[in-house]
Amino acid sequence: MPRHVTHVPLRWADMDAFAHVNNVVYLRYLQEARVDMLFVHAPRHGAEQLAEGVVVARHEVGYRAPLQFRAGAVRVETWVSAIGNASFTLGYEVLDVNGDGERVVYAVASTVLVPYDLEDARPRRVSDEERLVLESFLETDGPLPGRSAA
Amino acid sequence: MPRHVTHVPLRWADMDAFAHVNNVVYLRYLQEARVDMLFVHAPRHGAEQLAEGVVVARHEVGYRAPLQFRAGAVRVETWVSAIGNASFTLGYEVLDVNGDGERVVYAVASTVLVPYDLEDARPRRVSDEERLVLESFLETDGPLPGRSAA
Amino acid sequence: MPRHVTHVPLRWADMDAFAHVNNVVYLRYLQEARVDMLFVHAPRHGAEQLAEGVVVARHEVGYRAPLQFRAGAVRVETWVSAIGNASFTLGYEVLDVNGDGERVVYAVASTVLVPYDLEDARPRRVSDEERLVLESFLETDGPLPGRSAA
Amino acid sequence: MPRHVTHVPLRWADMDAFAHVNNVVYLRYLQEARVDMLFVHAPRHGAEQLAEGVVVARHEVGYRAPLQFRAGAVRVETWVSAIGNASFTLGYEVLDVNGDGERVVYAVASTVLVPYDLEDARPRRVSDEERLVLESFLETDGPLPGRSAA
Repeated sequence: MPRHVTHVPLRWADMDAFAHVNNVVYLRYLQEARVDMLFVHAPRHGAEQLAEGVVVARHEVGYRAPLQFRAGAVRVETWVSAIGNASFTLGYEVLDVNGDGERVVYAVASTVLVPYDLEDARPRRVSDEERLVLESFLETDGPLPGRSAA
Repeated sequence: MPRHVTHVPLRWADMDAFAHVNNVVYLRYLQEARVDMLFVHAPRHGAEQLAEGVVVARHEVGYRAPLQFRAGAVRVETWVSAIGNASFTLGYEVLDVNGDGERVVYAVASTVLVPYDLEDARPRRVSDEERLVLESFLETDGPLPGRSAA
Repeated sequence: MPRHVTHVPLRWADMDAFAHVNNVVYLRYLQEARVDMLFVHAPRHGAEQLAEGVVVARHEVGYRAPLQFRAGAVRVETWVSAIGNASFTLGYEVLDVNGDGERVVYAVASTVLVPYDLEDARPRRVSDEERLVLESFLETDGPLPGRSAA
Repeated sequence: MPRHVTHVPLRWADMDAFAHVNNVVYLRYLQEARVDMLFVHAPRHGAEQLAEGVVVARHEVGYRAPLQFRAGAVRVETWVSAIGNASFTLGYEVLDVNGDGERVVYAVASTVLVPYDLEDARPRRVSDEERLVLESFLETDGPLPGRSAA
């Protein structure tokens, strides 16, 4: 299945004292990619409710290489790695594709999202309509953020 | 072992469109707690190198309850959950302790850190001196961010 | 008249690639000081409406000296520099007071605020009650951000 | 003279509790436009030193209309409003151009910049070469952030 691709422009203020994009900033890049996929693109394909309310239950981010600050955007590829009854999981890679087509991966991440009924203020099940849209992005064998090891 | 306690003041700008502290902001709170523990307190106890260079290899954050914006600080408790040869893992709870002494936990998180030799620009082993300081914060049965499930 | 004093803790992420607090971050420090004065302290003295709605019409910030990153808070002193019929102006100094009592000023700033009626969605006049509270912070001869010169 | 045009993508995290781009975020948009003009485009035209070091001495921002959050970028137009011996001033408008070609201006701003000699750690004069580049963006009758009034 094709991954959803978002180009997230870096901001000067994303840079830390080591001239790298600071580790805390990556969650903002993932948020941009997620909002772009779920709020901008998914509703066009019939899953309006996804845009109305999902709650972040969990993030994992595995850092692979430092992202030196430079002008321009970084590529974020997003897919659906799992679909449960009352939650689903996104996978992401933050990367550059250089001139030779080589992929330089800065981070691999995942987010567990819970559909939420804003009126009743409680979690709800993934609807059949949403499941169809999410399945169109399903990639169950994508990379994982990595072990929790020490 | 006692956990390291940091009170991180909320900022107005931490609040999102739902008047909650946005999920991306938690990594900043963890960063404040981590810097406070490793850079401010650890060197006093003999682990100066920890303050010189550690690289974040991985973050996990499990969100437990929404943190409504309000004036004042939130409590972050930090401990060491594992010590390896070339990395160690911090655990955190972000919480309030209310009037009755009840703990309201907003997030449980962990970070894998890799000691880094800035001169040689490569990872290095945890030194004996550092291990002693880290062991003083060791809590191997603390709460975990949670399952990666969907 | 006494100035309102807020201690705003620096965050690691406030630091830019030169290990200074980046110029864009100062508006966040002013926001913390302003919210502390208007939302936390002013309502106790009878100006509840100030906490309900004011709109920022204008900021000026004059940078005086670089603020090197360090652990701890920076002092923000806030006062009211002018009160009009439908707006009022705050003045601020961002500074440290060092051991000898010497003041090291990093920035002088001002903000024009417009009281706003959220129900009618339009600006409103400063009420008599608000004027009394604002006058208690009035300092008309405080420092100014400086000339607009080139 | 033509203004320099930068399209700055909004980020979800720029939104405040009123679903507007918060006033403190505008300085980040101006920073993106400034870096784009001085660091990316100016060096191509012979003013390499501008990219090496300028210090922000002063910002003024006049807010004209609330910027509701939406996907996509906002337009920032940047010009040079004054050139002195040891400083120069940029003017900016933050705006949308809608379908009819109508300009909806959210903010008018200015920044005084001081060329800085990083080796000697002190301000320096604007060079002839820099003056030529800056003059190519000169617009002395552009809009101003507005009065400092209360």
